[in-house]
Amino acid sequence: MNEFDIIAKYFAPLSKHNPGALGLKDDAAIITPHPFYQMAITKDVITENVHFLPGDKPADIARKLVRVNLSDLAAMGATPLYYFLACIFPRTISEAWIKEFSAALATENKEFQITLMGGDTTTQDGPFTFSLTAIGEVPEGMVLRRSGAKASDNIYVSGTIGDAALGLKVLEGKLPGLAKEHQDYLVQRYHIPTPRLTLGKGLRLYAHSAIDISDGLIQDAGHIASGSLVKMAINDASIPLSPAAKAALKLDPSLRKLIVSGGDDYELLFTIPKKRTTAIEALGNSLNLPLTHIGTVKRGKGVTLLSADEEPIELEVAGYDHFR
Amino acid sequence: MNEFDIIAKYFAPLSKHNPGALGLKDDAAIITPHPFYQMAITKDVITENVHFLPGDKPADIARKLVRVNLSDLAAMGATPLYYFLACIFPRTISEAWIKEFSAALATENKEFQITLMGGDTTTQDGPFTFSLTAIGEVPEGMVLRRSGAKASDNIYVSGTIGDAALGLKVLEGKLPGLAKEHQDYLVQRYHIPTPRLTLGKGLRLYAHSAIDISDGLIQDAGHIASGSLVKMAINDASIPLSPAAKAALKLDPSLRKLIVSGGDDYELLFTIPKKRTTAIEALGNSLNLPLTHIGTVKRGKGVTLLSADEEPIELEVAGYDHFR
Repeated sequence: MNEFDIIAKYFAPLSKHNPGALGLKDDAAIITPHPFYQMAITKDVITENVHFLPGDKPADIARKLVRVNLSDLAAMGATPLYYFLACIFPRTISEAWIKEFSAALATENKEFQITLMGGDTTTQDGPFTFSLTAIGEVPEGMVLRRSGAKASDNIYVSGTIGDAALGLKVLEGKLPGLAKEHQDYLVQRYHIPTPRLTLGKGLRLYAHSAIDISDGLIQDAGHIASGSLVKMAINDASIPLSPAAKAALKLDPSLRKLIVSGGDDYELLFTIPKKRTTAIEALGNSLNLPLTHIGTVKRGKGVTLLSADEEPIELEVAGYDHFR
Repeated sequence: MNEFDIIAKYFAPLSKHNPGALGLKDDAAIITPHPFYQMAITKDVITENVHFLPGDKPADIARKLVRVNLSDLAAMGATPLYYFLACIFPRTISEAWIKEFSAALATENKEFQITLMGGDTTTQDGPFTFSLTAIGEVPEGMVLRRSGAKASDNIYVSGTIGDAALGLKVLEGKLPGLAKEHQDYLVQRYHIPTPRLTLGKGLRLYAHSAIDISDGLIQDAGHIASGSLVKMAINDASIPLSPAAKAALKLDPSLRKLIVSGGDDYELLFTIPKKRTTAIEALGNSLNLPLTHIGTVKRGKGVTLLSADEEPIELEVAGYDHFR
């Protein structure tokens, strides 16, 4: 099959719900913006050996690719609509691989009501590399930012923290003593993040700041701190852990560091004025998603992790750095 | 330097003219669309060994990356505004390389009045790979398409054809007999395409169809043919050649095939109703850009290349296929 056959057979069907995609046959896609909405646009790369492992299933890679980008839109309070996809395949790519990959994208299209609008497909002598551009919309002036946190805001996080980093440890064979069900849970959290889109939309009215946790809790809290010129004081004991993460920690208490610094959780970290506490509790209940109060915004800068007796815990680690 | 330092030092300055880029510090960029405009969005990848050569200058790569994408917007009649950039560097990347690359992007920003709005930067064990998403705008309903060509339209092409493919031959040392000035001209055409943006805008009112020539004249004519359900009849002798291409052809007449099939020219190929001939001539004159009438749209399908005595010339070659 040549490049155009592959696009026609496997990618064009992913664009069929939007005439502006022009069947992926033209030089660009045409998008007609909705009046009184702004567009939130993000572009994330995932590459073999860095963001996923050699031999990972095409479907898992497709889902991770879509979801890490949608997670960025969730953190802005945006509703996803469109995406553009660049696939850089190794020269040894098989049609079966592409078939499975595109079938998973079709499922993501349905799940998140998004449409493929364009992109590029090429091959090279190198690892699998994907770049996705995701486009969403937010009512004018309602966008969530990293830069709005205010001293005395409460700091919240959705879901549980550290699962994805522990899942990677499981895949690397470094948590052999952990029960099979816990291993499976952590691996699945690593492979298939859940973008907190409905939460992001719900936060538009209440949050002073928001970010998705892709680089690790501490590092991403640091991004809010530097963006908002505040200090983020996080209570270590309040950080919500899954039963699987608790079990792993029981086996090896030194994993605590990994939990606060490991990336790829794709939960939302956000700050809320204290008077909105009831609204946030109601939002969490309505979404059936734990929203945990883990600390307080203070005057100052940086991130402090506090022990149960409010002593600062030394932080030696930041998050993942691609240039390290 | 870590990833965040590199973004802050070299990429964030490229975003400074648009507050919606949020200093490249947030999860996504915010774009506020202009009322009564549609957005044209394209995403092209360029990768070492395929679209540029190992050791090519960072500045040349930056310019090619920007311009191949802007060429797609030109073919839609769009005015470029924003871009998102994913850089996948080899692990051996140096800061000097990134400095030179970003300096060239700054020049492109000025030249085309565009702003970097976001993206991603990572490293891998593999070749240099870049993905750029370019966003432009077109007044509602004015977009140029591949699919509007009508039988009896005249077929035009801008500039000269085949220079980039010949430039690559020069770089491969395969045109040693050619005069130095001609070699330099062809190489420069290969390295630094000129997106025909002003032409694209001018064509909004007149053209029935348009495409940019990235895959080769014959193959891209084929895209108009299949998109518009017509036949593209092109007169071989009318195809405009630069003095350098003519000189190369004199040395080796077999290069004729390369000229009609080689990619990377990034000229516009478009079809115009006959009654617009005067308007198109005036447009070419006002832009000081040769617009050459190279054939006629007919009923039927596919592309026919005609000799001076109107006999079809056998075409053995198509354009570049990444999966071949």
